[in-house]
Amino acid sequence: MKYDLYKDDLLNICRTASISELDDLCSDIRLFLVDKVSKTGGHLASNLGIVELTVALMRVFDCPRDKIVYDVGHQTYVHKILTGRAAGFDTLRQYKGMSGFPKSRESEYDVYDTGHSSTSVSAAFGMAMARDLAGDDYNVTAVIGDGSFTNGIVYEALNNIGSYQTNVNIILNDNGMSISRNVGALSKYLNKIRSSRKYDETKASVKSALNSVPVVGGVISKGLRNSKEKLKYSVLGEEGHLIEDFGIKYFGPVDGYDIQQMAEIIQAAAEYKGPTLIHVITTKGKGYEWAQKYPRKFHGISSFDPKTGEVLSKGGGPSYSKVFGEKLTELAGKNDKIAAVAAAMGTATGLMPFYEAHTDRYFDVGIAEEHAVVFAAGLAKAGYLPVVAIYSTFLQRSFDYLLEDVALQGLHVIFAVDRAGLVGADGETHHGQFDLSYLGMIPGMTVLAPADGKQLGEMLEFAVSIKGPVAIRYPRGSSEGNHLRIRSFKGGNSLIREGSDVTILAVGAMLDEALRAAEILAEGGINAAVVNAAVVKPLDLSWEDIGTQLVVTLEDNVMTGGFGERFTSEFRECGYDIINIAIPDRFIEHGDIPSLRRECGIDAVSVADRIKDYFERKA
Amino acid sequence: MKYDLYKDDLLNICRTASISELDDLCSDIRLFLVDKVSKTGGHLASNLGIVELTVALMRVFDCPRDKIVYDVGHQTYVHKILTGRAAGFDTLRQYKGMSGFPKSRESEYDVYDTGHSSTSVSAAFGMAMARDLAGDDYNVTAVIGDGSFTNGIVYEALNNIGSYQTNVNIILNDNGMSISRNVGALSKYLNKIRSSRKYDETKASVKSALNSVPVVGGVISKGLRNSKEKLKYSVLGEEGHLIEDFGIKYFGPVDGYDIQQMAEIIQAAAEYKGPTLIHVITTKGKGYEWAQKYPRKFHGISSFDPKTGEVLSKGGGPSYSKVFGEKLTELAGKNDKIAAVAAAMGTATGLMPFYEAHTDRYFDVGIAEEHAVVFAAGLAKAGYLPVVAIYSTFLQRSFDYLLEDVALQGLHVIFAVDRAGLVGADGETHHGQFDLSYLGMIPGMTVLAPADGKQLGEMLEFAVSIKGPVAIRYPRGSSEGNHLRIRSFKGGNSLIREGSDVTILAVGAMLDEALRAAEILAEGGINAAVVNAAVVKPLDLSWEDIGTQLVVTLEDNVMTGGFGERFTSEFRECGYDIINIAIPDRFIEHGDIPSLRRECGIDAVSVADRIKDYFERKA
Repeated sequence: MKYDLYKDDLLNICRTASISELDDLCSDIRLFLVDKVSKTGGHLASNLGIVELTVALMRVFDCPRDKIVYDVGHQTYVHKILTGRAAGFDTLRQYKGMSGFPKSRESEYDVYDTGHSSTSVSAAFGMAMARDLAGDDYNVTAVIGDGSFTNGIVYEALNNIGSYQTNVNIILNDNGMSISRNVGALSKYLNKIRSSRKYDETKASVKSALNSVPVVGGVISKGLRNSKEKLKYSVLGEEGHLIEDFGIKYFGPVDGYDIQQMAEIIQAAAEYKGPTLIHVITTKGKGYEWAQKYPRKFHGISSFDPKTGEVLSKGGGPSYSKVFGEKLTELAGKNDKIAAVAAAMGTATGLMPFYEAHTDRYFDVGIAEEHAVVFAAGLAKAGYLPVVAIYSTFLQRSFDYLLEDVALQGLHVIFAVDRAGLVGADGETHHGQFDLSYLGMIPGMTVLAPADGKQLGEMLEFAVSIKGPVAIRYPRGSSEGNHLRIRSFKGGNSLIREGSDVTILAVGAMLDEALRAAEILAEGGINAAVVNAAVVKPLDLSWEDIGTQLVVTLEDNVMTGGFGERFTSEFRECGYDIINIAIPDRFIEHGDIPSLRRECGIDAVSVADRIKDYFERKA
Repeated sequence: MKYDLYKDDLLNICRTASISELDDLCSDIRLFLVDKVSKTGGHLASNLGIVELTVALMRVFDCPRDKIVYDVGHQTYVHKILTGRAAGFDTLRQYKGMSGFPKSRESEYDVYDTGHSSTSVSAAFGMAMARDLAGDDYNVTAVIGDGSFTNGIVYEALNNIGSYQTNVNIILNDNGMSISRNVGALSKYLNKIRSSRKYDETKASVKSALNSVPVVGGVISKGLRNSKEKLKYSVLGEEGHLIEDFGIKYFGPVDGYDIQQMAEIIQAAAEYKGPTLIHVITTKGKGYEWAQKYPRKFHGISSFDPKTGEVLSKGGGPSYSKVFGEKLTELAGKNDKIAAVAAAMGTATGLMPFYEAHTDRYFDVGIAEEHAVVFAAGLAKAGYLPVVAIYSTFLQRSFDYLLEDVALQGLHVIFAVDRAGLVGADGETHHGQFDLSYLGMIPGMTVLAPADGKQLGEMLEFAVSIKGPVAIRYPRGSSEGNHLRIRSFKGGNSLIREGSDVTILAVGAMLDEALRAAEILAEGGINAAVVNAAVVKPLDLSWEDIGTQLVVTLEDNVMTGGFGERFTSEFRECGYDIINIAIPDRFIEHGDIPSLRRECGIDAVSVADRIKDYFERKA
């Protein structure tokens, strides 16, 4: 290592060092990233891809006065290193440790918190308009990947930006991937630009154009304000007419590993009076053999051996995602109307076996959760049975379409809502803590929550057999439960453990916490019954006849609109004493799931404590 | 009238009549539309604009085997007339009458229900893929306006479609308007095409191209399958490269009042093997003097005098929208950080005075509710106080951004949520019946509901004075209440009427229903207290000390996640008997608001009945 990433003033180095020194800095950063992430896990491939780009941005811009909004945010590791947070990587994504996403509370250099894709252009444009209104003159730049670029909100932003002549820069970080390989017409279009001879020509013509431009301190001088020079840059935009049709000046493509070239073009764009897009070509996983070879695997990865790239095994059974994908593949073998719809997360949601077995019925629409749901509604209208596999927190984007397109028409669409509840290390933006509420309020929606992988499979069969929209929500991670279920799922709930003092209605995978709570209570002489509340909506009317005075609802979802509130409102006349246990009304940070559950009061110990407390107050 | 629109087989006429006969049919339809809508009210201007286009579609396509998906759906009046529903116009948008939107339950010709904009392309593509999977060969066509075309989901769909070579047709009905004048870069781009000489040249070149094409029965023969002929059509696409970059064949622009030309080009597109876009130029309000002159006024209009175009006055005080717009304009005069953000509904949400007084702080982003919210978050991050004015039902599209961009960052953004509760004639897709739930579950969101216009103004001042996100939700229509309020709003709730038997907590504008219920109850000797529940979130903790045994919650929102459920869950230990009255768990059709409230059981009589029933059971 030539640099001390913990102590050196890296921002100053970015601004003043020579290009060859910066290349050394980038090498050091790559080594650091692979070393650290191999221990903590995290997003690796995307960060390795934009080391030079991040350095180039810091070379040109005067941060934090200038504002850089990183789209989706998991590619800000380099940014964090450069802005004095190298030490944070020892606790990356751990409970009370450094976040894997930009957070204003962490640093003034994190100007806008992101986590879900494709918001950066809208946010940057808002900041730019505020700057103009206030008569200020700092730069605002959005850095966005080509995967994120397929989401509709980006076009809404481009359409809005293009009608104003304000200074805002969009860096399109084009690595040809989203999380899986990028799909769609836009991707083909970018690929066409990238692979055309033009790319090499660009490199040559930029070099020659720049030879005539005076360079000061490593960045292009104000000479570029000269319109003739600008013209040279705009020539690069010949292939960019899709962008230029929006009234946005296109620069590129630019080699994402040539710091000099990037810095010069970013400077030119910053000085251009109006919105610009700089098309930067990068490679996901760049510079680390295994990540470059398997960028999908190294997108988000748990701890691994840096020499072999092998993930350090953590044991545990098959994930819910895996169980889902295999079961759906099997069902689709028997029912040729079943189709699968993914939004750029086919691998992560377990759909690869489906893709391989039923390729023509597999649709990956890109990072386009809105279109995914309406497209599925169209499939259903025309006689197919689509299964949309999507993360709980991303399905929030489709809320209106769930209501207006699917539920209002009573369409039989199945939603496989993955990563429900607390997801752990990804934190605030990724917890699926709202789904029981936003799904539960939708008229006609059946909402199911399995307690283990076996039940997930049974629920999928059930969901295929009924009519109307069905959502099955299940958590991240192992689908093996520490419990025995006797009855297979046929659309009802089942008593898993008998008890005479209290009945715990445990939604889905909270069953194990409830059973552990029951064991703790048993030690203190309290007999707890535990019910596998598998059907969250419609409510199970047999719950009018629960045999205990005290009923506890337990769910890994917020209180408002969740299972507990609905239960309480519906059965308030039964005279039960009711305790609703749910995720509190705030955003929950990242960390391991046991710690987070404890913090939220939804773990076995907290549940047992609440119940003991009730009996103590009664006594 | 040359045709009997009630009895003639209009579909057959569309297919077989001469062009001049069809021009007569279109004249008859226009007269019919103006006559009928002048009595019932409804969407007029957009329907007048596409009479010929609808006829041309029916000339070419074999419906219902071929599928036409009308975007947003309020422009299907002509479609309804042609498909045997002229008689329905006497009850248009009335309780139990014909819907103003396409409804599968009304007709097999309505193949996909719409109401919110921009879903047609995704839905049509889904249907087309299902058709291909099933080995069928019918046509699928989306008809979408240029305003709807600015919403991101359209681009998600185009991106997806462009990577498949399936037959799906998109008709871009370009009238240069959304509801107000269309905004944004795309609009400028379309305008450039429209106003270029190319447009006239197109007309000439299509005519000459068609002279060499054999025509059978008014439509182009299969001769067009000849690739040389197709080439002639594709020449028209020269200006359409934004579309063609997506891999979609562009045809146009085409005169939306030349049935012959439209039919020929639609036929050519239908026979083209792959996705196509046909750019049709129309004029909103076409053929009716007043609607053509004032297309915005005649977009959605109540009953009017067809001779003068004057709306028949219905009395009533100033609308909530008007009160909101004027108050915000006043506040922005005192606070130069206040900005207004609209999503193509600046006029409808009352923002025109703001636009006139503070033009530089007014932003209409187009039909782009997602971008509107993130753009506002950007404004807030950079020191401004944005007020986003949007309909309750359209804000559903922004749910994820409310959570992830606004609330997670704790940003001070005010949401003026218009058309909350039941909206009346627009029906199922437009009722704001979910907002208290989807807003209420958002951590840190303050949710307010005024009981009248005066309180709305006070709430706006209050919202400006606090921190964090605030939503103020209020209904459509007159803001004058039949009640006196003594205390002005300072962030709390207030007792409006004292009573010793029951306390009714009435959310927002439900106050008048509650007060009328109290009067009905008083006749039977039951003394009802009535509280103006103006603050829905956070919950008012003083409600631990309500003096009556029975507490009734009343809201024009669904039960799940609403005020009543949260109240019940929170105060269940206070020992109250609680009745939650809310909109039932289903979609509510169109009709006048009193009828709908009665149907939902949230009107004064139903509330009084529920309370009387409680006391009778107790007695």
